[in-house]
Amino acid sequence: MKTNRLEAFSDGVLAIVITIMVLELKVPEETDFHSLIPKLPKFLSYLISFIYLGIYWNNHHHLFQITEKVNGKILWANLHLLLWLSLIPFTTSWIGENYQASAPVSLYGIVLLMSAIAYFILQNVILKHHGKDFALRKAIGKDLKGKLSVVIYIVGIALSFYSTWLAILCYIIVAIIWFIPDKRIEKNI
Amino acid sequence: MKTNRLEAFSDGVLAIVITIMVLELKVPEETDFHSLIPKLPKFLSYLISFIYLGIYWNNHHHLFQITEKVNGKILWANLHLLLWLSLIPFTTSWIGENYQASAPVSLYGIVLLMSAIAYFILQNVILKHHGKDFALRKAIGKDLKGKLSVVIYIVGIALSFYSTWLAILCYIIVAIIWFIPDKRIEKNI
Amino acid sequence: MKTNRLEAFSDGVLAIVITIMVLELKVPEETDFHSLIPKLPKFLSYLISFIYLGIYWNNHHHLFQITEKVNGKILWANLHLLLWLSLIPFTTSWIGENYQASAPVSLYGIVLLMSAIAYFILQNVILKHHGKDFALRKAIGKDLKGKLSVVIYIVGIALSFYSTWLAILCYIIVAIIWFIPDKRIEKNI
Amino acid sequence: MKTNRLEAFSDGVLAIVITIMVLELKVPEETDFHSLIPKLPKFLSYLISFIYLGIYWNNHHHLFQITEKVNGKILWANLHLLLWLSLIPFTTSWIGENYQASAPVSLYGIVLLMSAIAYFILQNVILKHHGKDFALRKAIGKDLKGKLSVVIYIVGIALSFYSTWLAILCYIIVAIIWFIPDKRIEKNI
Repeated sequence: MKTNRLEAFSDGVLAIVITIMVLELKVPEETDFHSLIPKLPKFLSYLISFIYLGIYWNNHHHLFQITEKVNGKILWANLHLLLWLSLIPFTTSWIGENYQASAPVSLYGIVLLMSAIAYFILQNVILKHHGKDFALRKAIGKDLKGKLSVVIYIVGIALSFYSTWLAILCYIIVAIIWFIPDKRIEKNI
Repeated sequence: MKTNRLEAFSDGVLAIVITIMVLELKVPEETDFHSLIPKLPKFLSYLISFIYLGIYWNNHHHLFQITEKVNGKILWANLHLLLWLSLIPFTTSWIGENYQASAPVSLYGIVLLMSAIAYFILQNVILKHHGKDFALRKAIGKDLKGKLSVVIYIVGIALSFYSTWLAILCYIIVAIIWFIPDKRIEKNI
Repeated sequence: MKTNRLEAFSDGVLAIVITIMVLELKVPEETDFHSLIPKLPKFLSYLISFIYLGIYWNNHHHLFQITEKVNGKILWANLHLLLWLSLIPFTTSWIGENYQASAPVSLYGIVLLMSAIAYFILQNVILKHHGKDFALRKAIGKDLKGKLSVVIYIVGIALSFYSTWLAILCYIIVAIIWFIPDKRIEKNI
Repeated sequence: MKTNRLEAFSDGVLAIVITIMVLELKVPEETDFHSLIPKLPKFLSYLISFIYLGIYWNNHHHLFQITEKVNGKILWANLHLLLWLSLIPFTTSWIGENYQASAPVSLYGIVLLMSAIAYFILQNVILKHHGKDFALRKAIGKDLKGKLSVVIYIVGIALSFYSTWLAILCYIIVAIIWFIPDKRIEKNI
């Protein structure tokens, strides 16, 4: 089976997930700029989630650029990833209203962690379905970035019970690490 | 006519249907983990519907992978399937709030049953439009899985008036049966 | 310019328009089947709009199957059509709650009429951009179906001030006329 | 890397952004035509934003028609543009309810300005990634239309603190300037 329809469906889901978060940005009842200030945490949480979903779309794009064929397992591993990413608007909305409470901040990290693990599973299922000379194998290597992200997420989730600011800092650090798109794959195409 | 635009439109509708269910997961007003517990039934109903829509997308993907050409009847049979699938967010929301009441649980099953029948009709319209040597004919065979699902759905709908748990169990059993993508088609491509 | 991206964008908008109408189907607060009865008019208005949007998607599909190239004017004529179709969820929601009031019923017809006119404009802009031997020219002919629909819409809008039932009947008649996909184009491909 | 998936994802996001604005058009509680009059400013703001997003889609379409290859930087420049465009439903909703207040009118202009700047950045990143003979270079030329728009936006934002009508007029003027699709690119393909 070819990859094009899996890509089209994933593009659709990611486009919707990235956009429906805006529906949570409710218009203030007042009509001055001051009324936007209480919206700032919601907007910043939208911004961070937008960047995260952009990173996932970018990496997904790179991943299937190099993938040659898909099977049933890859379809499900991809849906599993989309499931976790589809929960980001929920956690974004909760953290946007309560960025100083432990539960919303740690749940935000848990969904990011699960998304990272789902991406990791997807990558491995794709590797298994391809031969030894598959370019992705070389491109990923030891996947240090992937493993480091998982560690930082776990640290962030743990820190959220002491300081939500430090937890949020962890999530931002991972975003910065991934902001630069995966050159390893671009080089190996 | 080629199949690509029918696939693109169906991907779009399925991607939206699978994602708008998340809009029903309203953020709790409290900020601790306990406040998530009342959301659990809603989340689980979302999860089951996500898997069901994933199954339909997978099977739809396999079906049109093998379909060579479409006509007006196939376009309408496909829209008929999308109509029933588009009602899943409604029934998911109702069952998520009232998983112990007969009406929401049986309605959930009725929409699944009608979707299965719509898929069955779509398959047959496609078969009629293709020749004797069409690979799908061999791949489907007697369509035991399809017929079994319909029977289990009807049993589930009937059971919902005695025990909603048994009804939900029926719906989960069908999901498990279909979870494994249709190898019959993969083999015959 | 090729037609593929215009088709992809139109598919996206139509898929969203057809699906967001479901968001208006609010879950009843009670948990029995009787509580669904007041939802029936909303559901039926959703059904009719779903069929109408299905007809437009089908005809759009046929139209661009045969169209060979697009220019800036065609892009805008297409966006003009999408604008009117994007208002259907609004009029569907209003008529669903007030199917016995003149204003919602006539507004529903006005948006359908404007959509038909927009489709007519789009068709003509495409014809102008193609040569004399363009297959669409032969396929459309005198476009009796298109002209008849416009007349019935106008009759329906006028009737809505006397009897909303007769107006709704007019809208259903047009849907039936178009339900059969445009064989004229299929024959001429 | 090819441009097709970037186009598909952008089409998805733009299709959703252009359509979810309709969700803000709430059905009036009364059932006569007079009840639609208070909705008029909301509808007009929807119309202007629809045209703006149509313009961006058209220009984006032309831009990637001519673009031959993409890299990581182009993907991010494109996401940056989509971020600003995704805020248009928010500013459309605010201005629709308060078209006589400075803050909503100037914020509407600020998001348009940032979108124009983001488009400008995207264009430049694409130019840098292509050779000297790249057709886009010739097509854009000195990009007078782009620079003029930025100036008019800034004038509009400044005017919004004196007269919201003059500010809105500025935004309409820019829309008219861009309404005619970019012939420069069509000529150079």
